[in-house]
Amino acid sequence: MERIGLAVIGAGYWGPNLVRNAQATPALRLEYLCDLDLQRAQRVLGGYSTVRATTSLDEVLADPRVRAVAIATPAATHLKVALAALEAGKHVLVEKPLAANLAEGRQLVEAAESRGLVLMLDHTYCYTPAVFHLRELVRGGGLGTVQYLDSVRINLGLVQPDVDVLWDLAPHDLSVFGAILPDEVRPVAVAAHGSDPIGAGHACVAHLTIRLTGGAMAHVHVNWLSPTKIRTMVIGGSAKTVVWDDLNPTQRLSIYDRGVERRDPGTLAVDERAQTLISYRVGDMVAPALTEQEALRAVMAEFAGAITEERAALTDGRSGLRVLALLEAASASLRQGGVFVDIEGDEDAKLA
Amino acid sequence: MERIGLAVIGAGYWGPNLVRNAQATPALRLEYLCDLDLQRAQRVLGGYSTVRATTSLDEVLADPRVRAVAIATPAATHLKVALAALEAGKHVLVEKPLAANLAEGRQLVEAAESRGLVLMLDHTYCYTPAVFHLRELVRGGGLGTVQYLDSVRINLGLVQPDVDVLWDLAPHDLSVFGAILPDEVRPVAVAAHGSDPIGAGHACVAHLTIRLTGGAMAHVHVNWLSPTKIRTMVIGGSAKTVVWDDLNPTQRLSIYDRGVERRDPGTLAVDERAQTLISYRVGDMVAPALTEQEALRAVMAEFAGAITEERAALTDGRSGLRVLALLEAASASLRQGGVFVDIEGDEDAKLA
Amino acid sequence: MERIGLAVIGAGYWGPNLVRNAQATPALRLEYLCDLDLQRAQRVLGGYSTVRATTSLDEVLADPRVRAVAIATPAATHLKVALAALEAGKHVLVEKPLAANLAEGRQLVEAAESRGLVLMLDHTYCYTPAVFHLRELVRGGGLGTVQYLDSVRINLGLVQPDVDVLWDLAPHDLSVFGAILPDEVRPVAVAAHGSDPIGAGHACVAHLTIRLTGGAMAHVHVNWLSPTKIRTMVIGGSAKTVVWDDLNPTQRLSIYDRGVERRDPGTLAVDERAQTLISYRVGDMVAPALTEQEALRAVMAEFAGAITEERAALTDGRSGLRVLALLEAASASLRQGGVFVDIEGDEDAKLA
Amino acid sequence: MERIGLAVIGAGYWGPNLVRNAQATPALRLEYLCDLDLQRAQRVLGGYSTVRATTSLDEVLADPRVRAVAIATPAATHLKVALAALEAGKHVLVEKPLAANLAEGRQLVEAAESRGLVLMLDHTYCYTPAVFHLRELVRGGGLGTVQYLDSVRINLGLVQPDVDVLWDLAPHDLSVFGAILPDEVRPVAVAAHGSDPIGAGHACVAHLTIRLTGGAMAHVHVNWLSPTKIRTMVIGGSAKTVVWDDLNPTQRLSIYDRGVERRDPGTLAVDERAQTLISYRVGDMVAPALTEQEALRAVMAEFAGAITEERAALTDGRSGLRVLALLEAASASLRQGGVFVDIEGDEDAKLA
Repeated sequence: MERIGLAVIGAGYWGPNLVRNAQATPALRLEYLCDLDLQRAQRVLGGYSTVRATTSLDEVLADPRVRAVAIATPAATHLKVALAALEAGKHVLVEKPLAANLAEGRQLVEAAESRGLVLMLDHTYCYTPAVFHLRELVRGGGLGTVQYLDSVRINLGLVQPDVDVLWDLAPHDLSVFGAILPDEVRPVAVAAHGSDPIGAGHACVAHLTIRLTGGAMAHVHVNWLSPTKIRTMVIGGSAKTVVWDDLNPTQRLSIYDRGVERRDPGTLAVDERAQTLISYRVGDMVAPALTEQEALRAVMAEFAGAITEERAALTDGRSGLRVLALLEAASASLRQGGVFVDIEGDEDAKLA
Repeated sequence: MERIGLAVIGAGYWGPNLVRNAQATPALRLEYLCDLDLQRAQRVLGGYSTVRATTSLDEVLADPRVRAVAIATPAATHLKVALAALEAGKHVLVEKPLAANLAEGRQLVEAAESRGLVLMLDHTYCYTPAVFHLRELVRGGGLGTVQYLDSVRINLGLVQPDVDVLWDLAPHDLSVFGAILPDEVRPVAVAAHGSDPIGAGHACVAHLTIRLTGGAMAHVHVNWLSPTKIRTMVIGGSAKTVVWDDLNPTQRLSIYDRGVERRDPGTLAVDERAQTLISYRVGDMVAPALTEQEALRAVMAEFAGAITEERAALTDGRSGLRVLALLEAASASLRQGGVFVDIEGDEDAKLA
Repeated sequence: MERIGLAVIGAGYWGPNLVRNAQATPALRLEYLCDLDLQRAQRVLGGYSTVRATTSLDEVLADPRVRAVAIATPAATHLKVALAALEAGKHVLVEKPLAANLAEGRQLVEAAESRGLVLMLDHTYCYTPAVFHLRELVRGGGLGTVQYLDSVRINLGLVQPDVDVLWDLAPHDLSVFGAILPDEVRPVAVAAHGSDPIGAGHACVAHLTIRLTGGAMAHVHVNWLSPTKIRTMVIGGSAKTVVWDDLNPTQRLSIYDRGVERRDPGTLAVDERAQTLISYRVGDMVAPALTEQEALRAVMAEFAGAITEERAALTDGRSGLRVLALLEAASASLRQGGVFVDIEGDEDAKLA
Repeated sequence: MERIGLAVIGAGYWGPNLVRNAQATPALRLEYLCDLDLQRAQRVLGGYSTVRATTSLDEVLADPRVRAVAIATPAATHLKVALAALEAGKHVLVEKPLAANLAEGRQLVEAAESRGLVLMLDHTYCYTPAVFHLRELVRGGGLGTVQYLDSVRINLGLVQPDVDVLWDLAPHDLSVFGAILPDEVRPVAVAAHGSDPIGAGHACVAHLTIRLTGGAMAHVHVNWLSPTKIRTMVIGGSAKTVVWDDLNPTQRLSIYDRGVERRDPGTLAVDERAQTLISYRVGDMVAPALTEQEALRAVMAEFAGAITEERAALTDGRSGLRVLALLEAASASLRQGGVFVDIEGDEDAKLA
């Protein structure tokens, strides 16, 4: 089988990871690393590489050996770079978020779909063994009905000059919500609060509250200023509750058979009701064995698979739009003092 | 010195702790444990006690040896019980929250102040060695300017029949905020989101966002449904940041010399600005040695001290009003879909 | 049913816990707290107690209402105090270790058995929910064959004036080994290393290595000088391995389906053998739900039960002898530079 | 400055790490990866590398561009491979342990020293920021007098076919002891206990007790069978005690101002002596900020530095001999049932 020729665009923070994982993926053949700063690209490739460094996106897109590009440039440039690639007939893997705003994102999705090209989001966390397990568990009904979600992603982070902490960090949490929740549980509205105590010019600490269909609530806390690093997500269900602690490599997932239940008062004698309407389950905890595997390796394999099999990727352009719709609504809420803002509805309908 | 005669009212969940600690306090003399259920009171006292159990509050209040009462009955009864005690000339220690609402709370404060009696809140956490240390640190300026606060208090908790999770758990966090923040940093407005996924009839999961004078933001997450127990508070400052983990007995406080700073652009050459406006401090962490001491012991000592020295207690009635004002505003926000609700202003002015 | 009259002897470090738990045990009736220092005894009882404080052991033993005594005096006095009690016809619960040496311990066991009296060791840890669970698991075969045990019990501890760290702390680990290991897995020989870096006059840090029947090895590390507190025991088995972390209240036991196995080379083709003789199991971990219950409460209930039902207690005098035999052999090894010393054999045979 | 031509010998478990870090070291120029299995070497280099793969050690050693080799082959082959390299005039970096036994190790040290070539051990842990900090702290006197060391290195490890767990894992601990202890605190004798519960043919669990000059004791626990991974080292001192937890990336070092001290009885009144001879210090803990840096990068830099500056490396051949002397004595103790075996003395004297 012929390998798929790939170019990586952008040699900044994330690009080197794309380069390394592309090289380790048998189905791909890395042809270029492209960056406006040639020395940066060369530095990333190192002194022992046969891969070409270039500053010319045109050169890359004109090369017929390049069938696909992976874009790790700032979000503001995604529209231009990805659109050029799609127009040149290349499949596209793009860093989160898909684009600088929802309108631009839709342009990219339409451009890809109209040409039958793969447009895939590098929602890296969705490709971790932990999230694959969560996806099975939550969508498969193993938790019962989802009651609440709570995600905390805080650490002493790089304060971005161009985007606030919501746009920088929350895409991780929102894309995971999208990957693991059942199709019938979708975000309906979002309220956002943020603060900028260091004068960065935009929020450095933010809280998102998301109303889901069915009434459950999801909450996301993102923070660039925390001296400690926390990356946990709790998904509470009527049957079980799972805690994902991504910083605990030996026990990333803990599935608790613990919870609170309200019993049907009709089944109880009148005088029992006061104390017995609520019952508590306190059972065992199971930490499933997970394979250790770099998520980006699975991203690359999925990208190659989607191209070869001519199918949508697991995190396709539409999943990117759903994240953008949430972020835009959150930004609107932030501007309006934290009121709930409805999330723009069915992307599929809009695009169709 | 004569010991202060004390009666404990309420032999339910918290009463036994008051009984045990009152008995261990040299300045107090426990005379009665009073509960509507005599057997419950007797059970709490055990078979080896010389303390009297009674069902009659009147008997207790009529006894001149009783100079003070400690009330651990449901919040809805605080007004009636505490008012009766104050009217009988007794000093009062009352469980949080002070009363079922702000108006009732004001009645109690006025009743106590007009009679020159001590009215003290059992804001137990304010009397832990950790919070005493935090108070010194934060009010003393050791953190620099307070930038944000974040408190998480979640576990598989007792779902209360009469109050929601905010009124049940958040008083702990709010009273600690009050104790440690400088006088000039006060809550201005609060937004609250909650959900009731088990059909308990009121919120079982809630998030509070509080705007403070000066623009900093405080956030509180309370949750009765979490399978894991977390009790952490982060107070971020411009100089240092402290993490209080109350479930880590060997390292409750961690003071980080870590943070993000924005430098004054005027001091930088033009071409440096882009990358140098933000700087990161990554220094040592210090975990101060704290004595291990039961907080309720210190509560009892403070109550006795306030009575003897005829002074206000550290957590006096007005501190209880400040917590009630926040809770009422939070409940209003909850009813109004999470909009920010102003907190009723200067209690001292109102009362004066 | 009439309650069993009890006296607690010794109001020092552990006595108050015996007093508190005896009072909470319905089958017992606490009559006396006896200590050479009357004020210490009175202080322990507090100012609200109907229990008598006394300095006279004779008075206690002469009182026919006292059917049993619980002894929490220094080990050097156990022979005298417990023997007096047994000779007065009282059942005896005694703090670990049973006596200052094996010979004295045998005297006590013989004194109790010849009179048909209960002689029980307060091996408190054996009565924790965690150890009850471990006992079921290990003796019930749930771990497969026991392969190794490893216990660490270190913290900044009270340096005892009269005994070294082995005699102070290791009885906990050794009694738990005795409680959970199958009958056919018994200590055969022990080697001990110790050091006294602060000049306390005896070992403050010590390591025990114990050979068990069947060839497995147990190791115990006890240390009074550690700034951090660790209390973990690992029991490795051919099928599963369990880790007991007594300082993690929400996950004291973790049962791992992980391990290394050597496969039978006969089942493999010759060219597979090199790499396939060893196989690794990496399965789930289960943390069983345990009730939270004070172990000393269960100790008291077992003591009362053994008296009432005229049976041996779970941790009877002979279990105390087995611990003493190990400690004596360990001390002999310590004196002989760490050589293995055989453990004096079948106590039952010797006594019979 | 010309870069030093390097060949990596061995493309197995550790070789790829050497390849990666050599390529990232500006002072080195990687010329070859040599392995008996050409495909394995090619696989390690990947499909984008300009580095040559070869099976011929002779070819490598004959190439004048190769001035240095890094050897990551099994310990049993170190003598042959390293000696050939030294005889060809190449500087040598070799994986731990230096050789299969002390006699072979001495041959290598003599071969290097007589030719004025660098012979360096890849004692990787000695090049971590944590150990650099420990070295400063311990050798600089910041802990006071060293009282004890305790190292635990356990996990579900690869059961090696040719060496036991002592020779596989303990070199890490022993080389760190060597790096951080003051020159006057050296191992005097060692006792070792081991067990092989899975029938691997050699010890899979082992405990080392080491007597140091001055009387302090060091203990090492290594274990291939543990379901959990622990990598901690405690160094107790008369002034402070430090805990190194290598699996806690955000707090690898914790320096405790806690400890136990024996006071000089001469300074005390007679009646104070009993209770006051021992005093306890319970002060703050400090977790120093450490840079995050891959240790192997520092190994490579040190190797290049030693070659360029014609000086001994920090972990030179003699440090490798000291580790071998300890391992041989430990193996002798293991064969003799755990008795203390003296460690062969001053290597420098022997070699001189």
